[in-house]
Amino acid sequence: MNPKIITLGEIMMRLTPESNQRFTQASSFGAVYGGAEANVAVSLAEWGFDVSHLTVLPENDLGKAVIKSLRKSGVKTDLVRMHAGRLGLYFLEVGAMQRASKIIYDRADSAFANLDPDQFDFETIFKGVDWFHWTGITPAISENTYLLTLKAIKAAHQQGVKISADINYRRNLWKYGRSPLETMPDLMQYSTLMVAGETDLENCAGINSKDFQSACANAKEKFPGIQFITSTERNSISATHNQLVGILWNGETLRSKRYDMPGIVDRIGGGDAYIAGLIYGLHYFDPQKALEFATAASVLKHSIPGDANEISVEEALMLVEDKNVGKLLR
Amino acid sequence: MNPKIITLGEIMMRLTPESNQRFTQASSFGAVYGGAEANVAVSLAEWGFDVSHLTVLPENDLGKAVIKSLRKSGVKTDLVRMHAGRLGLYFLEVGAMQRASKIIYDRADSAFANLDPDQFDFETIFKGVDWFHWTGITPAISENTYLLTLKAIKAAHQQGVKISADINYRRNLWKYGRSPLETMPDLMQYSTLMVAGETDLENCAGINSKDFQSACANAKEKFPGIQFITSTERNSISATHNQLVGILWNGETLRSKRYDMPGIVDRIGGGDAYIAGLIYGLHYFDPQKALEFATAASVLKHSIPGDANEISVEEALMLVEDKNVGKLLR
Amino acid sequence: MNPKIITLGEIMMRLTPESNQRFTQASSFGAVYGGAEANVAVSLAEWGFDVSHLTVLPENDLGKAVIKSLRKSGVKTDLVRMHAGRLGLYFLEVGAMQRASKIIYDRADSAFANLDPDQFDFETIFKGVDWFHWTGITPAISENTYLLTLKAIKAAHQQGVKISADINYRRNLWKYGRSPLETMPDLMQYSTLMVAGETDLENCAGINSKDFQSACANAKEKFPGIQFITSTERNSISATHNQLVGILWNGETLRSKRYDMPGIVDRIGGGDAYIAGLIYGLHYFDPQKALEFATAASVLKHSIPGDANEISVEEALMLVEDKNVGKLLR
Amino acid sequence: MNPKIITLGEIMMRLTPESNQRFTQASSFGAVYGGAEANVAVSLAEWGFDVSHLTVLPENDLGKAVIKSLRKSGVKTDLVRMHAGRLGLYFLEVGAMQRASKIIYDRADSAFANLDPDQFDFETIFKGVDWFHWTGITPAISENTYLLTLKAIKAAHQQGVKISADINYRRNLWKYGRSPLETMPDLMQYSTLMVAGETDLENCAGINSKDFQSACANAKEKFPGIQFITSTERNSISATHNQLVGILWNGETLRSKRYDMPGIVDRIGGGDAYIAGLIYGLHYFDPQKALEFATAASVLKHSIPGDANEISVEEALMLVEDKNVGKLLR
Amino acid sequence: MNPKIITLGEIMMRLTPESNQRFTQASSFGAVYGGAEANVAVSLAEWGFDVSHLTVLPENDLGKAVIKSLRKSGVKTDLVRMHAGRLGLYFLEVGAMQRASKIIYDRADSAFANLDPDQFDFETIFKGVDWFHWTGITPAISENTYLLTLKAIKAAHQQGVKISADINYRRNLWKYGRSPLETMPDLMQYSTLMVAGETDLENCAGINSKDFQSACANAKEKFPGIQFITSTERNSISATHNQLVGILWNGETLRSKRYDMPGIVDRIGGGDAYIAGLIYGLHYFDPQKALEFATAASVLKHSIPGDANEISVEEALMLVEDKNVGKLLR
Amino acid sequence: MNPKIITLGEIMMRLTPESNQRFTQASSFGAVYGGAEANVAVSLAEWGFDVSHLTVLPENDLGKAVIKSLRKSGVKTDLVRMHAGRLGLYFLEVGAMQRASKIIYDRADSAFANLDPDQFDFETIFKGVDWFHWTGITPAISENTYLLTLKAIKAAHQQGVKISADINYRRNLWKYGRSPLETMPDLMQYSTLMVAGETDLENCAGINSKDFQSACANAKEKFPGIQFITSTERNSISATHNQLVGILWNGETLRSKRYDMPGIVDRIGGGDAYIAGLIYGLHYFDPQKALEFATAASVLKHSIPGDANEISVEEALMLVEDKNVGKLLR
Repeated sequence: MNPKIITLGEIMMRLTPESNQRFTQASSFGAVYGGAEANVAVSLAEWGFDVSHLTVLPENDLGKAVIKSLRKSGVKTDLVRMHAGRLGLYFLEVGAMQRASKIIYDRADSAFANLDPDQFDFETIFKGVDWFHWTGITPAISENTYLLTLKAIKAAHQQGVKISADINYRRNLWKYGRSPLETMPDLMQYSTLMVAGETDLENCAGINSKDFQSACANAKEKFPGIQFITSTERNSISATHNQLVGILWNGETLRSKRYDMPGIVDRIGGGDAYIAGLIYGLHYFDPQKALEFATAASVLKHSIPGDANEISVEEALMLVEDKNVGKLLR
Repeated sequence: MNPKIITLGEIMMRLTPESNQRFTQASSFGAVYGGAEANVAVSLAEWGFDVSHLTVLPENDLGKAVIKSLRKSGVKTDLVRMHAGRLGLYFLEVGAMQRASKIIYDRADSAFANLDPDQFDFETIFKGVDWFHWTGITPAISENTYLLTLKAIKAAHQQGVKISADINYRRNLWKYGRSPLETMPDLMQYSTLMVAGETDLENCAGINSKDFQSACANAKEKFPGIQFITSTERNSISATHNQLVGILWNGETLRSKRYDMPGIVDRIGGGDAYIAGLIYGLHYFDPQKALEFATAASVLKHSIPGDANEISVEEALMLVEDKNVGKLLR
Repeated sequence: MNPKIITLGEIMMRLTPESNQRFTQASSFGAVYGGAEANVAVSLAEWGFDVSHLTVLPENDLGKAVIKSLRKSGVKTDLVRMHAGRLGLYFLEVGAMQRASKIIYDRADSAFANLDPDQFDFETIFKGVDWFHWTGITPAISENTYLLTLKAIKAAHQQGVKISADINYRRNLWKYGRSPLETMPDLMQYSTLMVAGETDLENCAGINSKDFQSACANAKEKFPGIQFITSTERNSISATHNQLVGILWNGETLRSKRYDMPGIVDRIGGGDAYIAGLIYGLHYFDPQKALEFATAASVLKHSIPGDANEISVEEALMLVEDKNVGKLLR
Repeated sequence: MNPKIITLGEIMMRLTPESNQRFTQASSFGAVYGGAEANVAVSLAEWGFDVSHLTVLPENDLGKAVIKSLRKSGVKTDLVRMHAGRLGLYFLEVGAMQRASKIIYDRADSAFANLDPDQFDFETIFKGVDWFHWTGITPAISENTYLLTLKAIKAAHQQGVKISADINYRRNLWKYGRSPLETMPDLMQYSTLMVAGETDLENCAGINSKDFQSACANAKEKFPGIQFITSTERNSISATHNQLVGILWNGETLRSKRYDMPGIVDRIGGGDAYIAGLIYGLHYFDPQKALEFATAASVLKHSIPGDANEISVEEALMLVEDKNVGKLLR
Repeated sequence: MNPKIITLGEIMMRLTPESNQRFTQASSFGAVYGGAEANVAVSLAEWGFDVSHLTVLPENDLGKAVIKSLRKSGVKTDLVRMHAGRLGLYFLEVGAMQRASKIIYDRADSAFANLDPDQFDFETIFKGVDWFHWTGITPAISENTYLLTLKAIKAAHQQGVKISADINYRRNLWKYGRSPLETMPDLMQYSTLMVAGETDLENCAGINSKDFQSACANAKEKFPGIQFITSTERNSISATHNQLVGILWNGETLRSKRYDMPGIVDRIGGGDAYIAGLIYGLHYFDPQKALEFATAASVLKHSIPGDANEISVEEALMLVEDKNVGKLLR
Repeated sequence: MNPKIITLGEIMMRLTPESNQRFTQASSFGAVYGGAEANVAVSLAEWGFDVSHLTVLPENDLGKAVIKSLRKSGVKTDLVRMHAGRLGLYFLEVGAMQRASKIIYDRADSAFANLDPDQFDFETIFKGVDWFHWTGITPAISENTYLLTLKAIKAAHQQGVKISADINYRRNLWKYGRSPLETMPDLMQYSTLMVAGETDLENCAGINSKDFQSACANAKEKFPGIQFITSTERNSISATHNQLVGILWNGETLRSKRYDMPGIVDRIGGGDAYIAGLIYGLHYFDPQKALEFATAASVLKHSIPGDANEISVEEALMLVEDKNVGKLLR
């Protein structure tokens, strides 16, 4: 039977001007629905996991559109609640050449931010679940979503559910009163897999280290339950030309192949594709292969429009083996 | 010299699914910027008035896009201020046949709603101005925008500026604490021209009457300064087939020709085009011709995509005379 | 608990030139996935029924796209099988004014047509199911699909599942050897609800009658289990202007309101929306209201691009009561 | 063998803003190539005539695009010459509702206007040709194109080629020095079929009459060789709703069915489709049927985007018989 | 006089999702018509050859669209026959970055596959013809198309027509019973120019060699009439970045310049453009220049959307000389 | 107070096929309005200068569209005059890979070319103006525009306005009788800043030199008032991959960083963005920083669709410092 996983997080509408236009030029916007955690859910569902995404959406047609979008990707929506409120959204201006991409967030005061953390019965929800995935974005949004995250993590831990945490420190959130340093460690401690770069570890766990390897060692000391810490190295040569390496620490530090990525189609969701790849990989492969799989999945995501990584397990594995690269498959 | 007019009000981004799609089907949205008052400003600027629109916008690229949009139409932006915050927006699903059009508002907590009413020096602003136009939407948004409206109206009145008020009662606003009945009459009393149907007069001035004629007489009694009260009769046969008549009370009740409007392209801004037409018409024509001009301008607006009524004075006058209707002009 | 329904039938890709272009002008085609039975499934799922669609798809990305499309609408895909083969498709040229719409079918030899009728264990499948819906298209495609239909109907009947049959006689199918007259009556006999006009009854059950009323009486005599026979009267004034009345026989002949439909957006799926409306209505309303609901649902379908009738129960009910027609709902 | 016909005239690029936008809103323009005479050529080639279009094009890629466009429709291009110069073009703003459509011409000084009238050996060209079609636009453009028309008509007449002339009086042409009244009668006299309304006959032949019937009688007196004079009555209810009747005088005045045309897709080329229909019809049908065929062909043209009337003979004949109107043909 | 050439082969509709979308994301498909042999025909017609393409198409509007497409490019369609049946088609998913492009073929049972090989009178057809071009795809489709190819080749050979054969071995064809090894040599033996890589020679002629040079020598031994064997070396760095070298054996092995091709627009038809370039080049240039011309033509094809290589001879020659590369030509 | 600048020059409509199509493939064209001098105006207005553009436009809706376009960018239009005539336009085919971009000009006989040079009162116009910018295109168009340029330059010089001249020698202009060598030096002599490469200096001032440095020295000798001469070195690797260096001579020759530009979005206006950058930079920075700013501004322009360089001063400065390059700014 396929692993059962729950993901938790806000889903936003992404609005993107077409054809490399700047915000001030746009007369139409492409729209997709996504979020760091939902994007992980989508990848895992595409690959056969049994995934439910837990979120709160506005009780209107935009909320319904989000649900349809999740269902289309095979993500279960039984843990979605709808309430009065607005859908968080953000505007993405896609850069080109040296010109950077820009995001204007408009997510404050969303139905998700204002959710009632007590409406979910986590004890029941986590029965029979294998894995729970959350990110540092959720506790950064509001007191309500912080409380929700806390309850979820505790319930998951109590039921023996494995936990992955994408720390994902965002300076422009954390406006509601709590500080990440005082808040995050309690949440992070139960993680089996932690997605965190050195900045994340510094800002959210107070870990200052000379490099990733020693930061991980320190994190392990602080949070002994952690088995894996992972991050990626992204080198941005231009808005459409990046390079990517995946890094996985499990006592020692493993590194994936380095990928050159000219001609990027859409980099949003690239990190989430990586995380999904790692969760998938750690279920079926050894750590090095899991890492290679995750990085290949992330690379392929950059070739696909939208947040969702609509690739098969086979396609990522072929890329790991340098097969079919850029070919015309008849 | 051309009349100098100031308009005041919020400008929002309108996001519309393409090709009659429902919200749940849309993967892209057309975007235009507009607002009830700014739409009036645009019409008058297109027709040669010297128009400044006073508003507050977010200090980001979307705010800049609004400014560009105003400038493109010839509206002056010297009274625009930019502050931190978000741009109000709304989603419009365009109906078809019997299926109604739907709006999802997402305008709460905008930079405009949170504006500081004291940042404008209205005494200076209204020097040399001929006309001031406001709507009942602005005092319905927030205490701040109510105060701004009040200050503006008082200063305008004091300087002898003529005032038009589009009452435009919106049940889904007025959430911040004040009631329209207690708030609006003080604002309405200084109007020369009032745009109000019977519902508006009842909800905002407590005037209950058996018909428009007597409602207007009662309003005149209550607000003796008023010279004109106007409204339109719209008959919605389907989402793309309406009928329209303009009505103008100035002691007696004048009615325009009745227009049949099958094949509507975009009805948003139709009422604003009418008001602009009346303001224009009352400067240059007798009341009946002003009314005919306004109604013709409104009809033509329904044939044009976007909020802005990009028509010439001549085109509306030709329609008043039933000339060039549906022709191919070489 | 919501009624549980199974629908059975082929799903095709519909390819449509854009902007009223003729086939010989088209350089791009809009694509949606649909089928007479799946369209019924989608409507019922949108309205809260628990719906599984049984079909066979090609084991390729186009097959996956069909599955995603079903899931998006909330239809369960546990009864979908994938095999080698092609996806049936058809090209639709959308007419305008007097110019008719045209379909070029390219559905022969599809994975569905070549399915193995023995791969489904219908005894298990129909456990706990309330309703089964099939159409006369399926037995008309191939011996295999005829056999599948036969097995399904028998199993459903045996388990006490109510059955609706959309006779839907298509002259251009029935090429594989069987004649409708010899084949269909055995399949039709178990229906509770039959969708059939006089031509259908004549061609598939040999019933010649002077009018719909007497045709129904004759059908009832021949198939005593039938409780309802339904049809629509469509008057095509032009490609985008039709009129529609729903008719329901249950001993006497009920007629719905007559709807005028100028400005049709997409008429494909209009009949399927009607059938879904009737199935829904007969679960919750009296026959006349069910008929009115079904006709209103069908009318609204004509305003929506694509095969799927993305409307709510409430919207159809409002139309039944002539409310919100063509309005702008804020 | 199919009739052999030569058409002569300028081909222009038509640039049209999309989605009912006004010129001042457009950021992209649809482009097609057409001209009054080439449109006739295209219809006749689609229907099986052996058609060559004689014209002069600029020797650049836009000229090549015109040639490709002709070839696509089956029109022969052996009589096309390419020279230095520009391609004439015009901008078309498509109206909606009461708002008229507008054309901005930009055709002056084109390669066609500046052509050398002596470069064509008409004696050879007209060998074996059955029919020659020209319009009053060509002699109105420049002295060169006037001379070309004169030479062509004389050579055609000398070789016994039947001639159709679409008088098509355009006030905004005739700028190069000649007056239509002094110029056109010499050209018109050789026509077998003349397309001319009362205004055309007045402006180009000095014929003032109380109605079409008597104008035709006078024209016959003046140009005894003429056998048919034809025109259409177009009633423009709105930009997208016209009514059309074809009229054919051949001693008596025949009238076609009256067609109601709501939902017009593209009216450009509607008149040319009518003329082509008449030329076709007079080859194969009696005058009344020819007239009905021509009018039906013209009606169908209004349902098709672009100048070219991509319909079959059968489709027009079906419409003559009121068959298939607005149906869905499977 | 320009060389007269006949090409023979199936033409398919190519359906391509837009903007790098995956099949599972696409809601619209761009459509072009092409085929390996027709693409050669189009290039040669654009360059002034007198080209007729022989094929069989379905007798419907899609078949007509194919004919219009050929005519637009200047290819004669007098050898096209239309019969009942379907148009073969294929879906192309355009890759990006490392992600490969994918083709889903849906060409089985087409009107072409089911053609009657005896309907063409090849003796008459090849009179006065200079060159005949066929590919190994045609005999791989069906017994009928094999027989057609055989008859055509024999007749061409008998009349002294030069023959080029693009071996183009496709593993996923050859399903109808014949084996390439037993079938192809008889067809290949009459070629003057053979397009074949080592795999083609191995699979279709049983020639196993250590390299291209010796494979060619062996082929020459086996088929003494052959004068030229050609192939290309394509290095796929990514889906949009390839490198290309042309190779021509005529006793010795010539190699073209190596082209770097980042930013490929459309690689379909790249090989056909090469072959057309070689056929053209061998008529006018020495072998090395012919090879350079062919390779340059192929490179330019990669910059053009669609199958057709809409470039001029001059443009390819400029690229051979490294002139105008990437410039802005005013 | 912001510097006040006047620019003078023709504005044309640019028509561009979409998606890398060739002219012969295009069925729609994107449209923007621009010109070498207006593009400079737009950049400077975006950056806060007080800019008026002086030009003559046709008195029709296309002329109005140009005015709206200028206003949108913040350029004042008080010096725009409208007269009968046509709008100059050009067609741009965007190249790809090795395939060059191509322009077909259609600008002859425009309203601008036929302007009356005496309609502008330059003495009044230049009061209080800081800078005047013109290019060598204007005197190359017609005698009228030559005279206009001459009058403008003299008046500007007399009033102490600083002058920048973009020599911009165009071989395909200068058709009206004057030779650049006899005409340009008189116009060039008053420049403070001259944009000129060696070819420009040779063709317009008869300066032959072994390199840019000595050409500049010679120019300084000939035109002692000149303080700066500038040019760029562009290396075109492909149509979408260029390299750029800015060069500024002010006695010595300064060079900017060399930028690699793969993935160019739109190179039109790249040079104008550079010139605007230099004019801006020389107002606020030292020459080296001004040069770096100008080159960075030009590089960023290549990433933006359209002629207008919609970037902020900050964005160009960040690029000068290699910051934010290709990042995702949240």
